[in-house]
Amino acid sequence: MQVQGTHYRTVWMDGNTVKMINQLLLPHKFEIIELPTHLHTAKAIKDMVVRGAGAIGASAGFAMAQAFIEAEKEIKEYVDAARKHIEMTRPTAQNLFYATKRVYDAAINSENPKNIALNEAQKIADEDVSNCKKIGEHGNKLIKDGFKIETHCNAGWLAFVDWGSALAPVYCAKQKGKKVFVYVDETRPRCQGAMLTSWELLNEGIEHRIIPDNAGAHYMSQGIDMMIVGADRIAANGDTANKIGTFEKAVVAKEFGIPFYVAAPTTTFDPECRTGKDIPIECRCEDEVLYATGLSDTTGKISRVRIAPKGARALNPAFDVTPAKYITGIITEKGIIKPDSNEIKRLFNE
Amino acid sequence: MQVQGTHYRTVWMDGNTVKMINQLLLPHKFEIIELPTHLHTAKAIKDMVVRGAGAIGASAGFAMAQAFIEAEKEIKEYVDAARKHIEMTRPTAQNLFYATKRVYDAAINSENPKNIALNEAQKIADEDVSNCKKIGEHGNKLIKDGFKIETHCNAGWLAFVDWGSALAPVYCAKQKGKKVFVYVDETRPRCQGAMLTSWELLNEGIEHRIIPDNAGAHYMSQGIDMMIVGADRIAANGDTANKIGTFEKAVVAKEFGIPFYVAAPTTTFDPECRTGKDIPIECRCEDEVLYATGLSDTTGKISRVRIAPKGARALNPAFDVTPAKYITGIITEKGIIKPDSNEIKRLFNE
Repeated sequence: MQVQGTHYRTVWMDGNTVKMINQLLLPHKFEIIELPTHLHTAKAIKDMVVRGAGAIGASAGFAMAQAFIEAEKEIKEYVDAARKHIEMTRPTAQNLFYATKRVYDAAINSENPKNIALNEAQKIADEDVSNCKKIGEHGNKLIKDGFKIETHCNAGWLAFVDWGSALAPVYCAKQKGKKVFVYVDETRPRCQGAMLTSWELLNEGIEHRIIPDNAGAHYMSQGIDMMIVGADRIAANGDTANKIGTFEKAVVAKEFGIPFYVAAPTTTFDPECRTGKDIPIECRCEDEVLYATGLSDTTGKISRVRIAPKGARALNPAFDVTPAKYITGIITEKGIIKPDSNEIKRLFNE
Repeated sequence: MQVQGTHYRTVWMDGNTVKMINQLLLPHKFEIIELPTHLHTAKAIKDMVVRGAGAIGASAGFAMAQAFIEAEKEIKEYVDAARKHIEMTRPTAQNLFYATKRVYDAAINSENPKNIALNEAQKIADEDVSNCKKIGEHGNKLIKDGFKIETHCNAGWLAFVDWGSALAPVYCAKQKGKKVFVYVDETRPRCQGAMLTSWELLNEGIEHRIIPDNAGAHYMSQGIDMMIVGADRIAANGDTANKIGTFEKAVVAKEFGIPFYVAAPTTTFDPECRTGKDIPIECRCEDEVLYATGLSDTTGKISRVRIAPKGARALNPAFDVTPAKYITGIITEKGIIKPDSNEIKRLFNE
C-alpha cells in the first residue's frame, strides 16, 4: 500500500537482508529497519517492531530463510538452533510457527536449501498478500458508494504483508472508485485505531475521522452503514476473539440493525476451539490503561503520561469474544460465510 | 468526603475568601486554592479549577456573595456588574445562573445585603449537599452487600459540593457497612473516570478498578449487578444527556439485563426539553481525542502526548443522549422514579 505516495509492504526481503517498517515509531516517524541476519529479524519480532498475525508470520518465514542462507557447514545443527530461537520470540503467535515449519520442512532435505528456503518464505508472504486482496474483493461487494463504515483497532495492511483484513474491502472499494467514509475507533488502551488505522487511511487518501470508543452508539444511532473488524481467533462455531471493545460494538451494532462483519483469512480459524469459551483471554499490564503513550508536546519524543492517580489499579483484558449471534458474516479469502459451524466446516472441506 | 483522611467539600467559604480544591491538578496533586474576591472566584470557574453542575453553582453563589461583601457605595451598580461578569464565565451552566440569581434576589433589596447574600450562598451549597446525601440514601436501597457496580465519567462529590450523584449511593452503601466493588470506566477522551472517580474512591477506601471504555460488554456479560451514571440534562420524557459513552453503556446493559440507573438532583431536569432531540450536543475540540493528558514520566509535569498521526482529524461529541427506554430508573433527592413524563411531572407537582 501507499506511504507518502510510494508503494510498500510491511516486510520484505532485499538480497539476504530483511527490511520492515518500524511500527514502534508509527505514526510519528516512518522508518525502514534493515535486518542483516536471522538474529536481527528474530529480535525485531520479539521487540514488536512488527506486529499482527500475517506480518509476524511472513517475518518469521524470512528469518528462517536467512538462517539457511547463513549456514555454512553443519547446516542442520545451525538451522535447528535458529528455528528454536525464532520460535521463542512470540510464543503464542500461530502464524509464526506455521511459517518457520513450512520453510524448514521445504528446505531441510533439499539439494539447494538456501534457494528453496528463500522461495518458500517469499511464497508465504505472497500468499498473505493474495489472501488479503481476495478478502478485499469479496468484502468490496458489500460496500455501496457513499458508505459510512466503522472499524475497530487496526486490521489493516500493517498487520499483514499488504492490504490487511478489515481494511482490505475499504481499499478495494476505493480502487473501484467508490467513496467511503471511515469512523475509526481510537481503540484504547493501545490506540491502534488512532495510531495505525488513521495513518494507513491518511496515506491512502481515504476520508475518515478518529472517534473516542465511547462515541460508537452516538454515531451508530445516527446511521452507519456497516462495521468491519479483524479477528485474532475464530472458534469452530463462529465466536470471534478480537481486540477488546469488539464485543461491545457488535452488541450496539445489532441494536441499531447495522451489519457487523469480521474479516479474516482462513488461517485465523481454530477448529480446535469448539466455542468462544475455549479461547483464553490474555490480561495485559495495567500500565497500558493507567498511562497513555504518544509524542510529547514538550520534548518531541515518544513518551508516556500517567492518567490515573498514584495507587490506582486497572483491569486490562486485551481481547474479548464476540458470540457468533452478533456477527452478520465472516469475510474470508474463499468468500463470505455465515458464522456457524456448518459453513465453517464447509470452508475447510472444499 | 475524605481526602487523605480529612473531610473536605469541593468548595467552601472561609471568612470572605472562597476556597476550593484545584481540580486542574487532580489526581496528581491535591491543592486548595484561595480566592479573595469575586473576580478571583469567577476566573477559577472560567478556568475550570472547579467543574460539575453542583460545584459550579455553589461557587457562583459564593462569588456573588463576595461581590456584595466587596461593594462599598453604589452597591447595586457594583453587584450588577459583578453578576454579569460571573455569568459570563460558563454560559451554558444552568446551576450557575440559578445561584447568582438566587443570591442577588435575596440580598439586593434587603437591609443587610452582605449577611443575607452570604447566608443565601451558604444555603445553596448546603442544599446541594443535602440533596446529594438524599440521592445516596435512596440509591443505597438498590445496593446489596457484595454488589459489583459500573459507573461512567465522574459524577462524584467533586462535581457537587459533597457526596455527588452517581457515587452518592456507593458512599452511602459503604457507610452502612456494605461491601461494593466499582468498575470505573476511564471515560475517554478526558478520562474523568480514571482521573477523578478513581481518586475519590481511593480516598474513600472503596475497592475498584479502572477499565478501558472498551471493556464494558466483556465485564457486563460476566456479571455486573448495576450501573449508575450522572446526568447533564434530563428531558421531560426521561431522555438523558450525559457524558459521551453513556448511551453505549445503556444499550449494552440492557442486552445483559443489567439495571441502568441515572442519579441526579431535580435541578438537572429540564421541562423545557420535550425529548432528548431538543438537547443540543456540544462538539468539543478535536485535540482532546488526538492527544492524551497526564503526568509525564520524564518531566514529572502535567503535559500532553499526541496519539494520532499529523494531519489526522477527530470527532469529539462531549455528550450523548440516552433514550428513556434504556433507563431503569432515575434516582433523585425526592426518591427513585421511572423515566417517563408522568412520573417526572409528578416529581415537580408534589
